[in-house]
Amino acid sequence: MDVSSIKNPKFLKKMPIDKMDDLASDIRSFLINKLSKTGGHLAPNLGVVELTLALHKVFNSPKDKLIWDVGHQSYVHKILTGRGDQFDTLRQYKGLCGFPKRSESEHDVWETGHSSTSLSAALGMSVARDLKHENFDVVAIIGDGALTGGMALEALNDIGHQKRNMIIVLNDNEMSIAPNVGALHNMLNRIRSGNKYNRAKEDLEYLMKKIPAFGGKLASVAERVKDRLKYLLVSGVFFEELGITYLGPVDGHNLHDLIHNLNYAKKRKGPVLIHVLTQKGKGYKPAEMDEVGTWHGTGPYKIESGAFIKPVAVAPAYSQVVNDTLQDLARNDDRIVVISPAMVVGSKLEGFGREFPDRLFDVGIAEQHAATFAAGLATQKMKPVLSIYSTFMQRAYDQLVHDICRQNLNVVIAVDRAGLVGADGETHQGIFDIGFLRSLPNLTIMMGKDENELRNMIHTAIQYDEGPIAVRYPRGNGIGVERAKQPELIPIGKWEVLREGHDAALLSFGPMLQIALEAAKQLENDNIKLQVINARFIKPLDHQMLSELVDRGIPILTVEEGLLAGGFGSSIMEFFHDHDDHEHIIERMGIDDCFVEHGSVNELLNELGLTSKQICARVRKMIKERNEKDGIRKVFTS
Amino acid sequence: MDVSSIKNPKFLKKMPIDKMDDLASDIRSFLINKLSKTGGHLAPNLGVVELTLALHKVFNSPKDKLIWDVGHQSYVHKILTGRGDQFDTLRQYKGLCGFPKRSESEHDVWETGHSSTSLSAALGMSVARDLKHENFDVVAIIGDGALTGGMALEALNDIGHQKRNMIIVLNDNEMSIAPNVGALHNMLNRIRSGNKYNRAKEDLEYLMKKIPAFGGKLASVAERVKDRLKYLLVSGVFFEELGITYLGPVDGHNLHDLIHNLNYAKKRKGPVLIHVLTQKGKGYKPAEMDEVGTWHGTGPYKIESGAFIKPVAVAPAYSQVVNDTLQDLARNDDRIVVISPAMVVGSKLEGFGREFPDRLFDVGIAEQHAATFAAGLATQKMKPVLSIYSTFMQRAYDQLVHDICRQNLNVVIAVDRAGLVGADGETHQGIFDIGFLRSLPNLTIMMGKDENELRNMIHTAIQYDEGPIAVRYPRGNGIGVERAKQPELIPIGKWEVLREGHDAALLSFGPMLQIALEAAKQLENDNIKLQVINARFIKPLDHQMLSELVDRGIPILTVEEGLLAGGFGSSIMEFFHDHDDHEHIIERMGIDDCFVEHGSVNELLNELGLTSKQICARVRKMIKERNEKDGIRKVFTS
Repeated sequence: MDVSSIKNPKFLKKMPIDKMDDLASDIRSFLINKLSKTGGHLAPNLGVVELTLALHKVFNSPKDKLIWDVGHQSYVHKILTGRGDQFDTLRQYKGLCGFPKRSESEHDVWETGHSSTSLSAALGMSVARDLKHENFDVVAIIGDGALTGGMALEALNDIGHQKRNMIIVLNDNEMSIAPNVGALHNMLNRIRSGNKYNRAKEDLEYLMKKIPAFGGKLASVAERVKDRLKYLLVSGVFFEELGITYLGPVDGHNLHDLIHNLNYAKKRKGPVLIHVLTQKGKGYKPAEMDEVGTWHGTGPYKIESGAFIKPVAVAPAYSQVVNDTLQDLARNDDRIVVISPAMVVGSKLEGFGREFPDRLFDVGIAEQHAATFAAGLATQKMKPVLSIYSTFMQRAYDQLVHDICRQNLNVVIAVDRAGLVGADGETHQGIFDIGFLRSLPNLTIMMGKDENELRNMIHTAIQYDEGPIAVRYPRGNGIGVERAKQPELIPIGKWEVLREGHDAALLSFGPMLQIALEAAKQLENDNIKLQVINARFIKPLDHQMLSELVDRGIPILTVEEGLLAGGFGSSIMEFFHDHDDHEHIIERMGIDDCFVEHGSVNELLNELGLTSKQICARVRKMIKERNEKDGIRKVFTS
Repeated sequence: MDVSSIKNPKFLKKMPIDKMDDLASDIRSFLINKLSKTGGHLAPNLGVVELTLALHKVFNSPKDKLIWDVGHQSYVHKILTGRGDQFDTLRQYKGLCGFPKRSESEHDVWETGHSSTSLSAALGMSVARDLKHENFDVVAIIGDGALTGGMALEALNDIGHQKRNMIIVLNDNEMSIAPNVGALHNMLNRIRSGNKYNRAKEDLEYLMKKIPAFGGKLASVAERVKDRLKYLLVSGVFFEELGITYLGPVDGHNLHDLIHNLNYAKKRKGPVLIHVLTQKGKGYKPAEMDEVGTWHGTGPYKIESGAFIKPVAVAPAYSQVVNDTLQDLARNDDRIVVISPAMVVGSKLEGFGREFPDRLFDVGIAEQHAATFAAGLATQKMKPVLSIYSTFMQRAYDQLVHDICRQNLNVVIAVDRAGLVGADGETHQGIFDIGFLRSLPNLTIMMGKDENELRNMIHTAIQYDEGPIAVRYPRGNGIGVERAKQPELIPIGKWEVLREGHDAALLSFGPMLQIALEAAKQLENDNIKLQVINARFIKPLDHQMLSELVDRGIPILTVEEGLLAGGFGSSIMEFFHDHDDHEHIIERMGIDDCFVEHGSVNELLNELGLTSKQICARVRKMIKERNEKDGIRKVFTS
């Protein structure tokens, strides 16, 4: 079957199961083929082919609501709801989104990207249905990794309490993005392997048979005990304790079992959890055999060999530099420990983990716990490094405020993927943290211009003992500078002039500085000398350098890969006005009050006007304004 | 015993249990007496008198670490660690903090205020101990309410996984701040009442006796089953499933049982949870009989009658106005539902709950779930009102960004206790939200000048269908204006001139406007006319009014009860510079990069310089600067 011609899932209602198995194969081939060119979340989607088919057979989307937690496993759903023909544009600029997107289809009823939100959303929809006396099913599909996120557990607590009709499909593939960790995972593992439960069940059944068939009290007690035991010996006692009916485990690649269980769940009253066992990467050998998560999300690859087609990297990834530096430093500093909320692979911390297995803590998808766990370590004079994506740090905002900054604890926050991230799009752009970090008292914030400076900053952060300190770094590779063997300390709050100039000053940090330097070069052609300042401390600002700028009076342009409202540029305005310089030409470039969709970083910078061309235009405009002002002054004084 | 003379808890080591019971009585009398004058968290502390005595008898603080979750139950701990003599200053300006405070005592090893952080912190301390090969006990004391917070559950997952030695004391008093809700609570209730478990246990024991004592296979199977059943029938199967040894339930007012169990837990390997049953308010009848949480935290009261000594309120509390308005509107608008994360009493939503029990959702201490649950409701065209304290909204920051604002859903956010809150201090001040909210695309933010405008804003927010909208309102009572029967719509983004003036303009919102108007009056004496603008929309700004200010060129002062970095004042600077007005005198007043401790709101405003006197001084300074500038111009042009 040509899966890209599917318009909607209605045809599944009449399709016999063996034909659906054929369709599953076709979908797998389609995914393996298409994603080999575009890249994308291959393994998660290969794992849910049958599950998605079964869901669309049993339920009537969009009347019934299918809610995909995290959402990177929604490709099969996208195919079945008429978007197969757009897969050539997957995760590309203006193309098909890698996550559910309400503007793409009425079948996408809830947007995701971050994990663990589906249960709360599903409960909200169920309550709305009941209050409006409507009649539809609500199904949340959540992975075992996402289940450990605090908000999913908060939701389970409320779901078990409210007892509304809703279905939770627990897609248990033993790994979410990387191998899962935690006690909940161990519990699910026990169920998977079945040993303890099955053994106990068998023993009991054997024993029950031996109990003499007395009448009277003994008989009724025996009945009661059997009932109770049935409850206690089902696998999902954890969920049953929370008031949620547990079904399973169910083979997630057996369409018959899936459909049977989904139909049964549909009929039951109250919340039901179906525990479905799937294999990530199912049907594609290289992905099936992956044990660390390399096939979770990939770039293009060769189908036959499973080899990734990667552009030759000119420089190491920034995250690799962070790992390597920490690894170097940890050899001589026992205080260093690293904490990651399920992003050991993403943040390239495997090296540190191999060398210091006791000092790397993968706490699972649990950003809040990760931050406060780090704070606890810091109270005992350890030097915890909280490695966390900018966008996921949003989950730990209160812990940053309340536990880390308020107690002024020496936690190093390694803010990975700060700035634009590209193909993951809207939900993953690291564009909020400058604003929400710089308002926190006690916090120092840095970002390096290249991989060597990043290395120095990690070193500086480890040595810093005055409170929490954040080091931001972008997704992707460095710019190819040499890294000094011995990292150097950077004086706190000291900026650096990268290029002198007397007509205007540009203040920026991180990768934007490369674009700024390009602009400065282009402006030379107009005989404009632009000073370029590496404002590597976002907080505290370099008061000395800023005071000099107050005195010099030249126009100032700030450029940042983040939201303008309350961002770095605003902090510069704040400085000037607070220092009674109310006459300075200060302009800001950045992201103006919008979420930023997916696309390559360059395409996005272009769309947002964060290019050397735009910088030149803005500098010229400011200088013109400045000259006019001076002109007026000259008229006055002449 | 004169409990205010206690210097440290060492004396407990040798004290016999019956003397400790006497001491417990003395501590209760002390608390009831002292708090009748100062107010404070009476009921939680009366509930943990024996527990705290037992902890300090069994463990050696500060070598052993006692970590108080939320921390409002740490008064007995403060008494035993030498702070009884400071209770006259409790929660007052420069006085004893109502929460653990590291600067107060070496026995306070972890600061709290927000709930559910203790387990992560305790795990961090345990890991540090193990890595440094040190030897001490770590004990977290957490309430059943705090346990439902997502981060506590994230921590349990990691604790069960890491298997370090640590002790969790679950202080189960059936209510945290208000009566608890949720499936976890129901589970604990089943254990408390013991019916199901005890019945099953009895049944099984009866049955087991009847099994013929065969030898061979049957005997060994029976043994195995007994073992297994022992495990399955203990009360704490939920915790055992997570890999945490469960002990209890233990009578939390029986010193002998408490000490026995704590000693046992101390010896056990791995994480242990002791389930302690306490009674909130124990030993003071009015508090014992409280069923809704009025005695959780109180002002002064009459000891004999239990009557609260309240200043006569001139006007209703802002939160009461929100409740009343929602109640009025909900009668004619079926879409309205209200969600509260365990703050129904604090936010005075009881009235709404009584009239619309099906439309008020207390989801427990679960801010993340609360926000996304609201988002789920909004997708189905309901009109959810998320009622949440400013400070607790920090826990739902990512849900605001990722689920509500990014999807542009019609959620009304009723931001209670925005601004300074007084006695609760540092952890509870609502001073971050202006900055972190205004950078969110799609979000509208309002704050009313008085209770009538707040009422209009709630009405406006309910009618608004363009996306999420936040209404901030302060703790405490309104200013005593009349409330119109029919609330009116406020045009989105339109400010209001409260007082005309041509020398300078002051932009502010909320309660600060009263102080601003006072200042304007005082300035009249100097013949300075200050325009006072009610900038009731923090976002979007009133572009028309701001453009007029650009044209008029008078100095502008912004005043806000929030952090300056990236706050409202910065948004005004951003506007002027973005509109090419780089010459405007703009100054800001607010909170400059610090956490704000406890004290009355007036004392705090004074300390922060947010007074009419300071406003006058600043306006005079700006006008002087402006005149000098004009003087220079006049010299030029003459």
